[in-house]
Amino acid sequence: MSLLVIGTVAYDSVQTPSGNVKESLGGSATYFSFSSNHFKTTKLIAAIGEDFKKEDKDLFEKYGIGIKGLETYPGKTFRWSGYYHSDNLNKRDTLTTDLNVLADFNPKIKNSKSIKNLFLANIDPELQIKVLEQINPRPKLIGIDSMDFWINSKEAYLEKLFSMVDILFLDENEAKMMSKQSNIFSSAETLLKKGTKVVIIKRGEYGSIVFYNNSIFYCPAYPIKNPIDPTGAGDSFAGGVMGYLSNYNDITHDNIRKASIFGSVMGSFAVESFSINQLENITKKEIVNRFNFLYDAICFSKLNDQETTKLLY
Amino acid sequence: MSLLVIGTVAYDSVQTPSGNVKESLGGSATYFSFSSNHFKTTKLIAAIGEDFKKEDKDLFEKYGIGIKGLETYPGKTFRWSGYYHSDNLNKRDTLTTDLNVLADFNPKIKNSKSIKNLFLANIDPELQIKVLEQINPRPKLIGIDSMDFWINSKEAYLEKLFSMVDILFLDENEAKMMSKQSNIFSSAETLLKKGTKVVIIKRGEYGSIVFYNNSIFYCPAYPIKNPIDPTGAGDSFAGGVMGYLSNYNDITHDNIRKASIFGSVMGSFAVESFSINQLENITKKEIVNRFNFLYDAICFSKLNDQETTKLLY
Repeated sequence: MSLLVIGTVAYDSVQTPSGNVKESLGGSATYFSFSSNHFKTTKLIAAIGEDFKKEDKDLFEKYGIGIKGLETYPGKTFRWSGYYHSDNLNKRDTLTTDLNVLADFNPKIKNSKSIKNLFLANIDPELQIKVLEQINPRPKLIGIDSMDFWINSKEAYLEKLFSMVDILFLDENEAKMMSKQSNIFSSAETLLKKGTKVVIIKRGEYGSIVFYNNSIFYCPAYPIKNPIDPTGAGDSFAGGVMGYLSNYNDITHDNIRKASIFGSVMGSFAVESFSINQLENITKKEIVNRFNFLYDAICFSKLNDQETTKLLY
Repeated sequence: MSLLVIGTVAYDSVQTPSGNVKESLGGSATYFSFSSNHFKTTKLIAAIGEDFKKEDKDLFEKYGIGIKGLETYPGKTFRWSGYYHSDNLNKRDTLTTDLNVLADFNPKIKNSKSIKNLFLANIDPELQIKVLEQINPRPKLIGIDSMDFWINSKEAYLEKLFSMVDILFLDENEAKMMSKQSNIFSSAETLLKKGTKVVIIKRGEYGSIVFYNNSIFYCPAYPIKNPIDPTGAGDSFAGGVMGYLSNYNDITHDNIRKASIFGSVMGSFAVESFSINQLENITKKEIVNRFNFLYDAICFSKLNDQETTKLLY
């Protein structure tokens, strides 16, 4: 009962106020799996080019991530380069996007019966639907991510997808775009009506809000004083959420909250280094420590009867 | 053992996407006291002009707010007008600031021995120091607010003030300016070193973060789907925090957290109407209901031994 992610594997060139890297291992499926694999054995399906380095393949295998679905296409691996602003790390400019083999990516699912937990990382929604149509019976847990580009160009496919999945991950602006609402609480309400069980609206350093079953959970971001590179934080967040939940049969009031906290924890590790350097080196003890830190940073006691009476009467 | 606030009483003209008001009752001491008075009887010291309306004086008295310290100066009452952007309610343009009697404000403290709880709302830091120097013995609880204008023009006075007070309320940008740090966690660390016990960094719709005694508390904002007017939200937040804490002899791990939640609750009422219309009409039951909503929106269970073991080994 492992976890399958379908997404991108890329070589990223990134410049941030802390420095830069050239052609380092990246992509949504990469960040996701290096995060989720701490909680649940993860397999990935993604397209790579003929130039994909053996040492990078080895890295996935060293960490026990299943790469049988890493399919080599003629041509070069997908490349992305971006620049983060020094006054605000949340501001990102994409410098170049070279789709390369990603243009031909056509994921094929084998042994669909064994797929119980699935994450559709950010790729063309038409492909995401094709993937879902190949899987029977429906996995017990399905999560999906997307981005503004697809909301603008393939909204109808996303509408259809949102009714087919359990957990929708969007950032604040994407949620507003997709719901055509200007307020995130109204956005979440509109998105939940499209049929997904859980909507998680990500707000970067401001944490995220989890909407589920008429309840709302404010999930804080783990405090990072010196973020190095925000690339992959969202995918690592989703990896923590999906990895943790893959261990359970249902989504419950308590486990979706814990899962989100683990999402925050994994996102915090992702931004502490370029590429997946930090994600691959952390220990389970460090993960649990950050979870407990966040528990302590939001818990407080209920109003007791005496206080309630005093305030009420 | 009441609570004293020293700040402004104003006539505000405000335009927001929801509408506009002309010359409505406002000012930091007004919003603060209509909020704090729900928790602790509040008195205010502020300057008004000869044009200040009797019906507005009566309104304070009707709600049991002490206005003996409302001193009439020759001239007109302080006036402010502002405009909130339709795409982002957090963006505010000040259109006019007519100081009028505020230019001559020179607060005089009587019966300083009886002042146990004090809030220095946003006024000239030189005046804030003059106030503190008139009070002996030191109140058991002192809170202070300021703004970018004073940080730019009277930083040295603020430095001195921060070592004299218990709780410092600043918004995110003000905290970064005052600490000369680009990250709010480093900002809070720097500000705490100046001598104040608690630093509360306000982030509008993203809630606030409370830094105290090496601990951190993420305090969420209460979700408001249709905010009408953000004016006074910060002062109402401070009113909830200071009002609640005025009932206790010390600041503790638990009561500073509960106080901040009450701050969020009171801020949420403030933005639901123009002026203090909503703050004056709410019941204690509505306050407690929102407190309990926020409790439910951030609590979750600790990791149990079984889970910790599974994740750790």
